[in-house]
Amino acid sequence: MYRIESDSLGDVHVAADAYWGAQTQRSIENFPFGPTETMPIGIVRAIALVKRAAARVNRRHGLDRTLADAIEQAAQEIGDGKLDDQFPLMIWQTGSGTQSNMNVNEVIAGRANEILTGTRGGKVPVHPNDDVNRGQSSNDTFPTALHIAAVEALNGDLIPALGRLRGALAGAALAWGNVVKIGRTHLQDATPLTLGQEFSGYAQQLSDATERLRQAKVHLLRLAQGGTAVGTGLNAPPGFGEDIAAEIAALTGRAYVTAPNKFEALASNDALVQFSATLATLAVALTKIANDVRLLGSGPRSGLGELELPANEPGSSIMPGKVNPTQVEMLTMVAAQVIGNHQAVTVGGMQGHLELNVFKPMIGAAVLRSVHLLSVGMASFATRCIEGIEPNRRRIGDLVERSLMLVTALAPEIGYDNAAKIAKHAHEHDLSLREAALALGLVDEATFDRLVRPGDMV
Amino acid sequence: MYRIESDSLGDVHVAADAYWGAQTQRSIENFPFGPTETMPIGIVRAIALVKRAAARVNRRHGLDRTLADAIEQAAQEIGDGKLDDQFPLMIWQTGSGTQSNMNVNEVIAGRANEILTGTRGGKVPVHPNDDVNRGQSSNDTFPTALHIAAVEALNGDLIPALGRLRGALAGAALAWGNVVKIGRTHLQDATPLTLGQEFSGYAQQLSDATERLRQAKVHLLRLAQGGTAVGTGLNAPPGFGEDIAAEIAALTGRAYVTAPNKFEALASNDALVQFSATLATLAVALTKIANDVRLLGSGPRSGLGELELPANEPGSSIMPGKVNPTQVEMLTMVAAQVIGNHQAVTVGGMQGHLELNVFKPMIGAAVLRSVHLLSVGMASFATRCIEGIEPNRRRIGDLVERSLMLVTALAPEIGYDNAAKIAKHAHEHDLSLREAALALGLVDEATFDRLVRPGDMV
Amino acid sequence: MYRIESDSLGDVHVAADAYWGAQTQRSIENFPFGPTETMPIGIVRAIALVKRAAARVNRRHGLDRTLADAIEQAAQEIGDGKLDDQFPLMIWQTGSGTQSNMNVNEVIAGRANEILTGTRGGKVPVHPNDDVNRGQSSNDTFPTALHIAAVEALNGDLIPALGRLRGALAGAALAWGNVVKIGRTHLQDATPLTLGQEFSGYAQQLSDATERLRQAKVHLLRLAQGGTAVGTGLNAPPGFGEDIAAEIAALTGRAYVTAPNKFEALASNDALVQFSATLATLAVALTKIANDVRLLGSGPRSGLGELELPANEPGSSIMPGKVNPTQVEMLTMVAAQVIGNHQAVTVGGMQGHLELNVFKPMIGAAVLRSVHLLSVGMASFATRCIEGIEPNRRRIGDLVERSLMLVTALAPEIGYDNAAKIAKHAHEHDLSLREAALALGLVDEATFDRLVRPGDMV
Amino acid sequence: MYRIESDSLGDVHVAADAYWGAQTQRSIENFPFGPTETMPIGIVRAIALVKRAAARVNRRHGLDRTLADAIEQAAQEIGDGKLDDQFPLMIWQTGSGTQSNMNVNEVIAGRANEILTGTRGGKVPVHPNDDVNRGQSSNDTFPTALHIAAVEALNGDLIPALGRLRGALAGAALAWGNVVKIGRTHLQDATPLTLGQEFSGYAQQLSDATERLRQAKVHLLRLAQGGTAVGTGLNAPPGFGEDIAAEIAALTGRAYVTAPNKFEALASNDALVQFSATLATLAVALTKIANDVRLLGSGPRSGLGELELPANEPGSSIMPGKVNPTQVEMLTMVAAQVIGNHQAVTVGGMQGHLELNVFKPMIGAAVLRSVHLLSVGMASFATRCIEGIEPNRRRIGDLVERSLMLVTALAPEIGYDNAAKIAKHAHEHDLSLREAALALGLVDEATFDRLVRPGDMV
Repeated sequence: MYRIESDSLGDVHVAADAYWGAQTQRSIENFPFGPTETMPIGIVRAIALVKRAAARVNRRHGLDRTLADAIEQAAQEIGDGKLDDQFPLMIWQTGSGTQSNMNVNEVIAGRANEILTGTRGGKVPVHPNDDVNRGQSSNDTFPTALHIAAVEALNGDLIPALGRLRGALAGAALAWGNVVKIGRTHLQDATPLTLGQEFSGYAQQLSDATERLRQAKVHLLRLAQGGTAVGTGLNAPPGFGEDIAAEIAALTGRAYVTAPNKFEALASNDALVQFSATLATLAVALTKIANDVRLLGSGPRSGLGELELPANEPGSSIMPGKVNPTQVEMLTMVAAQVIGNHQAVTVGGMQGHLELNVFKPMIGAAVLRSVHLLSVGMASFATRCIEGIEPNRRRIGDLVERSLMLVTALAPEIGYDNAAKIAKHAHEHDLSLREAALALGLVDEATFDRLVRPGDMV
Repeated sequence: MYRIESDSLGDVHVAADAYWGAQTQRSIENFPFGPTETMPIGIVRAIALVKRAAARVNRRHGLDRTLADAIEQAAQEIGDGKLDDQFPLMIWQTGSGTQSNMNVNEVIAGRANEILTGTRGGKVPVHPNDDVNRGQSSNDTFPTALHIAAVEALNGDLIPALGRLRGALAGAALAWGNVVKIGRTHLQDATPLTLGQEFSGYAQQLSDATERLRQAKVHLLRLAQGGTAVGTGLNAPPGFGEDIAAEIAALTGRAYVTAPNKFEALASNDALVQFSATLATLAVALTKIANDVRLLGSGPRSGLGELELPANEPGSSIMPGKVNPTQVEMLTMVAAQVIGNHQAVTVGGMQGHLELNVFKPMIGAAVLRSVHLLSVGMASFATRCIEGIEPNRRRIGDLVERSLMLVTALAPEIGYDNAAKIAKHAHEHDLSLREAALALGLVDEATFDRLVRPGDMV
Repeated sequence: MYRIESDSLGDVHVAADAYWGAQTQRSIENFPFGPTETMPIGIVRAIALVKRAAARVNRRHGLDRTLADAIEQAAQEIGDGKLDDQFPLMIWQTGSGTQSNMNVNEVIAGRANEILTGTRGGKVPVHPNDDVNRGQSSNDTFPTALHIAAVEALNGDLIPALGRLRGALAGAALAWGNVVKIGRTHLQDATPLTLGQEFSGYAQQLSDATERLRQAKVHLLRLAQGGTAVGTGLNAPPGFGEDIAAEIAALTGRAYVTAPNKFEALASNDALVQFSATLATLAVALTKIANDVRLLGSGPRSGLGELELPANEPGSSIMPGKVNPTQVEMLTMVAAQVIGNHQAVTVGGMQGHLELNVFKPMIGAAVLRSVHLLSVGMASFATRCIEGIEPNRRRIGDLVERSLMLVTALAPEIGYDNAAKIAKHAHEHDLSLREAALALGLVDEATFDRLVRPGDMV
Repeated sequence: MYRIESDSLGDVHVAADAYWGAQTQRSIENFPFGPTETMPIGIVRAIALVKRAAARVNRRHGLDRTLADAIEQAAQEIGDGKLDDQFPLMIWQTGSGTQSNMNVNEVIAGRANEILTGTRGGKVPVHPNDDVNRGQSSNDTFPTALHIAAVEALNGDLIPALGRLRGALAGAALAWGNVVKIGRTHLQDATPLTLGQEFSGYAQQLSDATERLRQAKVHLLRLAQGGTAVGTGLNAPPGFGEDIAAEIAALTGRAYVTAPNKFEALASNDALVQFSATLATLAVALTKIANDVRLLGSGPRSGLGELELPANEPGSSIMPGKVNPTQVEMLTMVAAQVIGNHQAVTVGGMQGHLELNVFKPMIGAAVLRSVHLLSVGMASFATRCIEGIEPNRRRIGDLVERSLMLVTALAPEIGYDNAAKIAKHAHEHDLSLREAALALGLVDEATFDRLVRPGDMV
């Protein structure tokens, strides 16, 4: 059951129940990657949001009110997720996202025409280019949609997940503020600190990451819309960029503004590159934190054994009773993919030519996947790992007591060189630090006991 | 409608119509990333293939024949794609792929039990660990499956697509062997070559890429199976590794062998890292080729304009009649993602600890995605772009005639310095090379005409 | 001519004229990479700055005034570059930079002792650990020095170079504001813009890059000093971190503050990772800009030919008279290395364990090299390329007149589909747009001439 | 004291004692990066080798015998390192390496003229372009030199260092073949293996790396020489490529051949990209190995403590007596930089245009630096770390005895589920495995003692 749709290259058969038109259909056939490679729905919905805002602005510039209403309604249906199955196009298409823009234009026109005439599809009375896309080009619409989709995912998913994990770490920092433990630098025993202090560092890393993401967001809030084909705004009415940014801000409740220079906004994706870079810095921080948790939780009998991680599932198909740090492994794998995605984004960002960067769908999809992976990953890691950790206080206490690096507290009193002799002597003869110190006669008992107190060294 | 399944952590509710058991169900709940992040089915099927081969070997070592038959049958059904909806687990899980191994173990057991008893699921008479996983660990099964999945995708998809594109380029090289054109180095006019020569370089790049992939495959054909938990082969009968590799080779018709060192095979993923690196080198080559095609096809009136690329779809939502190099853009975006994926794989590959690398699902999924993207991308680029290109012979001829760098042919006769004077004079006074040469009196007419023949310079 | 120096591992021969001691000497022998791999002098000087500031603070906490003065004097001599040959250690050493910290401690002690006693070297009266390093650890000193070295290079070199290049681009944007030219999207002819508009986009990219660097600097201004060995500040007097940050701020005139959390400041290098990421984003922007300049300057006869780049040197050893865009090539190579360095920094940043990241020297050296390459590269590109570019106005004018995409201006009047027919007709029959439009009867002459004016379309 | 040299752009002042000419001088002034960024001498010497071989071939094609002899002599002096200070040019220059090729051409001409006339410099009787560069272009010479420099460094430095480290690891594998220890997967206790088995995996990783490097070398042995400016071989006599490859093979004793397709050999750097990728895979392997050594050597009292690493230097400026795994830290930092360099090489490799890739100096310098870092790093790590490691047999024995995962040996007898109960019971009640097994009555004493023997499980 087909109908005929047409574009400047000629006629195309389209399934009768589809809302899309000729250009969408061509793209389906031209890029056969299969369903795992579909354009993220967040981008589709952001394009639809642009169309809705555009209809509002265009109405003020002469777009027929009936058509504008129908466009708005159809666009909102997309935004509400009612037409998700109408967007079958791939990430891997034209580098400007033109085909996804046309997919949205065609579905809106097809649905608006159905609303207005009862017949699905076609270009009358609502034309996908002349009406839905009025005053717009893919070249400004698609980057606008990528910024919107990124900000929505950032604010809607990432910042809350980051807050949750930071909260869990800060909570641990508070709860374990009096658990004195051995510090380790170079993975070698060092002077003590509290477990709470250790976790406070992780919480700080995430506070800083949040601050960086907010900085990166400033440039994402700047929208390309209004530049049309090459940045000049040809065929858009004066003030279109400002007006549509205001509409989008009103529709979303976020501080979107029109980009100060539309040539930059089309030709470069630097704001997305920096956002992706900032996600990668977060991934670096998460790797460090998760690796520490894994290490402190190593054991149960032959590892560091300072932390007991929650047992969420049996760990081994062959070793009965084994429990593994699976949330850590998930999070570090996620981090690796985010770092990899940033490499893809970097490669795409550097390659645009002249008036347009044509790696936009790849960049957009990679960034949104990174945000998704980090959001779910951090929330899960907070809930299913950090919040369930118990310190093994006995083990922690044993280790700190035995440490040779407590000798550091003697150095200001007896000098670095003498202190080093004590540590070396204790290590070689398997003595306690106290035994070694007294044996060498480099410090008296009272002084030793006054200075070498782990609890005072943190 | 639920049934109760259990594992060492206790009881779990599982949907009555699911074949899986407790461990799969826990994993579904522990890693809520959603359907876009599902473990690639190619990996699932490769695990099932291992199970089928294992049942054959285990039968020789005492596994009950009836159970073995049922395991084989269930495993084959998975391989045939009949149970695809039974593998809902995420890429992002434990880093050993244990949960996907258990998912396959449980579904096989659940289906085998149904075959044998009429009741779906459970552990009797076929136990997922004791029978299906017999002689195996996730730690050897999962890397074995990753190698198999990679080789199958390489041989089944990538090499054919590469061959197709190489063939298209070699065909172009042959067809255009007499089209003399201007060469460009540094994007500046240089001495001539034929269009066929230019494309022969691209074909050579892909021949070399094929050779590199075959080299990388050698290490992928080595299977970890037989190492069980840590590489020692504990709980596997003697010769299990060799026997199962032979079975897998027989089942697939490929030259799989057992890995020479099982400790390396579990603890490192170097073979996959190098395979991914080789895919990235291919992506580098494809970027270069596609960029050249884009550049030579730039225009139609203000670019280089030497090639006319097929018009597969309208190019712009705002500029009527525009046609864009969309297949080029798809392929270069694909290449960027493959380069990014290799970064993820690198980060994962470097991070294993001691007896096991725990970034395996991410590495496997990234590699398989890269293979898929490259396979579809190259085949599409061959069919929808390269094979439809037409050289614009008039334009090509015009450009080569006007080139100043034909002066190079004079250098052996009149010296580099004099030849440079001619080129400079022609450029500054907007003369033809011949006019400039004669004006400066540095060569006579006959000599010029004898030496400066583009057709003789290629 | 040797003297004997000693440390906790025993005696070491040191050249009589060297200021350093045992630990430096051991490190020379333990890491034989050769002179190309020396620790950047910027890091050494920053460590010396820390020592100078520390002596000031330590004087208030009981460090003998004579010793403190001698330490300050020696440290200042290092800062002034008088002792550059005393720092032979490699980037590739311990990951905490301990040996470079000790190198500075030893040279300062050695020089201070010479000042005070006439005898070079040794530990009396000034001891490298007990006096010079007093209240400090490598673990806080080295990251402090990396931040300082990065900020000094950023403010001293990078920001000025960035400003210079941005100024050159903004100047070009202004100068060429009335040069109407063909736009190109997808490397295909598009609607017109001015050359000034095109360059304004580049200037905007660099304004944004400057803003991002200033954001990244905020975290670099936070200094780890005061955390000592593991972040607790053991062996440092109360307020040491705040006091030394104030001294460093006073000595440099920059807004350094003490880090809010010393555990984070030692264990992570996130601030440097993000700074490196921001340098990489700048490299992405520079690649785009330089690539455009290369493309617009391609020719002289068979390229786009819109820009004439300065001829700084003969371009070819075989092709006489050839001139190449060598500054472009330098800058894009620099950008590639910066992107690569960021990868190294990322890999280093993610790998720390517990209380200390031990990839600090690599991270510091990579970041400083990136800053240096970008600084010199941008300044040179501004001076030797951008500032010497001349637009080829005749060529630019020819191209814009012939463009088919001027048809876009007709679309609002005659509709997208009709406009597309005109463009297609013109392309297929090699007509001017005007000829095609009139031939098809889709627009009258007067309307065409009113609407299709490149100068009005920008 | 200057003399005047000239090129096609005019006259230039050159220091009287320099051998170089106008083009070198211009390049010095055009790329002011300073001495840390000089073109690696290995590349310079490889270019000189090409010149020596070219003089031999050119003599057969009419180059004056006297001139040819002088060229050969001068080229050999460069190869012997006698003129190292005559190559002041930067990595960051034209992307074809033209200026370094001209630097060598000019120095050879300048020195040859001195030999023949007593006057240094100039172009008579030996002309840098017409005689020294005869039959060559930078476009084929420079990539030829990069391949040669890479192969020489690979064979001369990297393979020996790799062999040394592999030998040290294989020696350890042999020496510790009977040291039974706890295995760890997911950093959690697992079934036992021997320390020798663990190290055998590392040795295997390096065997595989060696094999991969030999595969990558195959393509490096193919030389671009003979392609001249664009691959056609214009101005080179017939057979020049084959002849010069044979001369280079004879001069070096390596199996160099002429590249099968010169267009590919100039326009792409895929062979170097793949070589760099293979270095990065080696870096991945080294990171894994070094990380394991660091982890097993962690302690002395609060880490895993299974290995005692050599104490090469005092570890801390503040913690007396501390010893750190500095060789591990050096090697993992080196690995990070190599991975980063590969990213730079990837970015460079993908960006060439048409007949020439112009990222060659960066690619060459990055690859050679990676080889250097890995070579020195591996040799040092072998000598100063691996060869000095002592296993702490007491600690190793204690840990393996206590392990719960020995329960795995019971699973084939009592089933996975029962075995899991024992492990869980032991963990929860802090019992030995034997105690727990007997307490639960799931196995009798004799069976337990027969099956649970760590020494039989490896």
